[in-house]
Amino acid sequence: MSLAALSERLHAINDILCAIALLLWDSRVAMPAGGAETRGAQIATLTRLARDHLVDDATRRALEGALKQTAGLPADSASRRMVEHVRAAVDFHRRIPAGLAARRAGMRASANRAWDAAKSANDFALFAPYLSETIEAARAFADAAGFAAHPYDALIQLYEPDETIKDLRRLFAALREGLQPILRSAIDRPAPRRDFLSRDCPETEQRALAGRLARLFDYDQARGRIDASVHPFEISLTRQDVRITTHYRSDFLATSLFGTLHEIGHALYEQNVDPAYSRSALASDLIGLYAVGGTSFGAHESQSRLIENHLGRSLCFWQLHFDLVRQAFPQAMGDVSAAEFYAAISATKPGPIRIEADELTYDFHIMLRVELEADLMAGRLQVADIPEAWNSAMREALGVEIEEDRFGCLQDIHWSSGMIGSFCTYTIGNVMAAQLQQAALAQVPDLASHLACGDYRPLLAFLRDAIWQHGRRFSRDELLERATGRRLELAPYLTYLAAKYGPRAA
Amino acid sequence: MSLAALSERLHAINDILCAIALLLWDSRVAMPAGGAETRGAQIATLTRLARDHLVDDATRRALEGALKQTAGLPADSASRRMVEHVRAAVDFHRRIPAGLAARRAGMRASANRAWDAAKSANDFALFAPYLSETIEAARAFADAAGFAAHPYDALIQLYEPDETIKDLRRLFAALREGLQPILRSAIDRPAPRRDFLSRDCPETEQRALAGRLARLFDYDQARGRIDASVHPFEISLTRQDVRITTHYRSDFLATSLFGTLHEIGHALYEQNVDPAYSRSALASDLIGLYAVGGTSFGAHESQSRLIENHLGRSLCFWQLHFDLVRQAFPQAMGDVSAAEFYAAISATKPGPIRIEADELTYDFHIMLRVELEADLMAGRLQVADIPEAWNSAMREALGVEIEEDRFGCLQDIHWSSGMIGSFCTYTIGNVMAAQLQQAALAQVPDLASHLACGDYRPLLAFLRDAIWQHGRRFSRDELLERATGRRLELAPYLTYLAAKYGPRAA
Repeated sequence: MSLAALSERLHAINDILCAIALLLWDSRVAMPAGGAETRGAQIATLTRLARDHLVDDATRRALEGALKQTAGLPADSASRRMVEHVRAAVDFHRRIPAGLAARRAGMRASANRAWDAAKSANDFALFAPYLSETIEAARAFADAAGFAAHPYDALIQLYEPDETIKDLRRLFAALREGLQPILRSAIDRPAPRRDFLSRDCPETEQRALAGRLARLFDYDQARGRIDASVHPFEISLTRQDVRITTHYRSDFLATSLFGTLHEIGHALYEQNVDPAYSRSALASDLIGLYAVGGTSFGAHESQSRLIENHLGRSLCFWQLHFDLVRQAFPQAMGDVSAAEFYAAISATKPGPIRIEADELTYDFHIMLRVELEADLMAGRLQVADIPEAWNSAMREALGVEIEEDRFGCLQDIHWSSGMIGSFCTYTIGNVMAAQLQQAALAQVPDLASHLACGDYRPLLAFLRDAIWQHGRRFSRDELLERATGRRLELAPYLTYLAAKYGPRAA
Repeated sequence: MSLAALSERLHAINDILCAIALLLWDSRVAMPAGGAETRGAQIATLTRLARDHLVDDATRRALEGALKQTAGLPADSASRRMVEHVRAAVDFHRRIPAGLAARRAGMRASANRAWDAAKSANDFALFAPYLSETIEAARAFADAAGFAAHPYDALIQLYEPDETIKDLRRLFAALREGLQPILRSAIDRPAPRRDFLSRDCPETEQRALAGRLARLFDYDQARGRIDASVHPFEISLTRQDVRITTHYRSDFLATSLFGTLHEIGHALYEQNVDPAYSRSALASDLIGLYAVGGTSFGAHESQSRLIENHLGRSLCFWQLHFDLVRQAFPQAMGDVSAAEFYAAISATKPGPIRIEADELTYDFHIMLRVELEADLMAGRLQVADIPEAWNSAMREALGVEIEEDRFGCLQDIHWSSGMIGSFCTYTIGNVMAAQLQQAALAQVPDLASHLACGDYRPLLAFLRDAIWQHGRRFSRDELLERATGRRLELAPYLTYLAAKYGPRAA
């Protein structure tokens, strides 16, 4: 009775979160420019409503009853987990003063504009006051949310529950140490031919190709759609409507190719959550107030990286599918072999821009940001000192000189959107993807042969079984323990990178 | 203080209504088929939230204070009208039991499906039980909402405040009498050449042409967009984001041409509501819970009919702009003159289908539906007897024989959507459009010459001043009295039709 009442409340909250998701999707894909004036208020109102619905008396009454009703169930039963998610979220939102939540949401639009202007003018000083305010609000948030060891942990929780800066630093130390020899070996190799990557590939054919890639991996377009946007993203409005976008550059095919593969990975996670969890607390992020079925940002990223990198950036994949590219762009790609294409997209070259980074240098960009954020949150770094700290960290990590801040500390939108604490999830995704891929190869009979024939169904079935179907029922580490016998571990990732790029790699 | 608090509540309610509008827009323009499973629940949840927000204690406390605060203002001041709209809506929604509202909303999906199946199978019996249930719920709604003379009046109020079946019957009697001689004369004329209307006109060029038509009338596409959908519609998410759709048939250009002109009329109304009313009760239908700035469905329809018919179906318009069509479709329209095109789109021919009806027969379709609905609501007609009543009314009104119900009483979606009471607004729109156009010609210096030169700005300025800017501040008849000195009156409409189609017309 109480459980049913609680479920009904949660269904309504999920409906609101889905409406927010649509307001966001539309603002990036369809909304006319003039709509921006009122869209922020619409999203803020619905977010506040979802939060109010969650903490109101009706939900709390149902929650109390549902806690008693499920107390005798196994600790990891879906019902008990659902109820516990709600309890944790109610406790969380009651700890955050309404004024603080409104302050953090309210500063986003002006901070975004200031960042945009600062980046265009290559003038960090234009953004600094907004970033100071953002950090200050993030510290107030950490104090309200609570944390055991480090204020940054309270921010990380929003994206990666149970993760801490202490554990991240341990992971990063090992990752740096493991990556360095592989990176040195990869940089020393002769640069492959890359001229064809910037040849003209008409957008119409790129769109058709994106649809073909989606079909390769059973991304169900009757429950989804592919649109264009400046920054690619995946967004879901229940498992019945999971949309992705990609960015088409006629002078750089790789952008849409790997952007599409990446977002397909995210979309598969959402489309394959157990239908029984639809609209429930097991398919809603009740802390961040997002309609998302994946259990953490890192777990989500692992799925996108697995499809994009482990499959999409493999030689085997292009030996099978480069014909699709050649047929779509006979003029641009007629004289290119699958092996040449693979070599071009796998080249390693340290550079200043995160989103253009290759597989080996990408994590250095992440680690740099995480360390800076942690120091800002701890008060060990002042906003005014960010450019110098950034540039010296880039020099040390990758030997890259940052000449202008717009190619350095002003390159990413995250800080201006108040997203402090999310960067770590990209590297967690890389690590987790390799761990899952290694487990799949060990557990699925003949998986390597299936992949070599372009039969992705056994791998997709493994992922559905191990990860996707569970929605938010299990934590990231629980999923990993169930699927691989171990919590998040670095070794498979370094093994994968060493085999692909290391001294003894082909 | 109370007024400010009330405004803030209303802003939030408008935000929710705009989110509902986007969920609707998306379901007709972008949503993948699978999304239908959860979309209905999302719209239902947000509609309930908007209603709950409106009747909750916080709104009512603010309302009580605001009523006192504005009591000394002139009766038609914007603030006082705003507060009175809220009071009327709160009273209304408190009269309707939550269970009844949910019942009416909940039956929509299954009734829609039954209607669709019945229409495909040409079998009214498949839809009849759902329509009986719809009528029964509509009667329960009328009892709860209250009415003075006729239960149908309670339904009409939802779309056309202050309108009654008694007044409509008086209007219709005069309209029938006035139309008959004009219609006879028009039918007797020799049929013009119409072969070119069904020639192939590629959709891409039709889309470009729709954009050019929009620019002719200053429909601001930085605050709007034009998409394709099965049934054309206009929808607004505040005046900053007013979208239209049209339907493209490559074998019938007229569909998108006049569909676009029609929706542009609706869009101009919404885009030109006073910015000061944005997100307020003067830009929200708090009874029907729609984000709409126009004061009634009939007033809205008058703007679409004015652009579509009085301008778009005039000889003068095509003499000026047929070159746009000829340039877009040189193969299909190269051998057609502006006069021939005008004659073809102005031909009068009674037929069974409302949405394909010409200007002279259109209102007969409306009057038939309104009379049937009134009799159903009064219990004077049973659902099972609809086909016979429909067919005999069509025979009497237009001499058209209905051979199959799918071309008769099953043709429109309205009843299956629970929309009883809305049809009258189409004819009210026709009548009001002519009244406004006549007033504009009398009041705007040299308006006829401006129109003959394709300069629509003076007319648009008149409409902005007289109608659009006021949002929902004034009622339909108040707007008409201010603009024309009279409430809704039929004479200008008959004058317009007689001049265009009557015995003495060219």
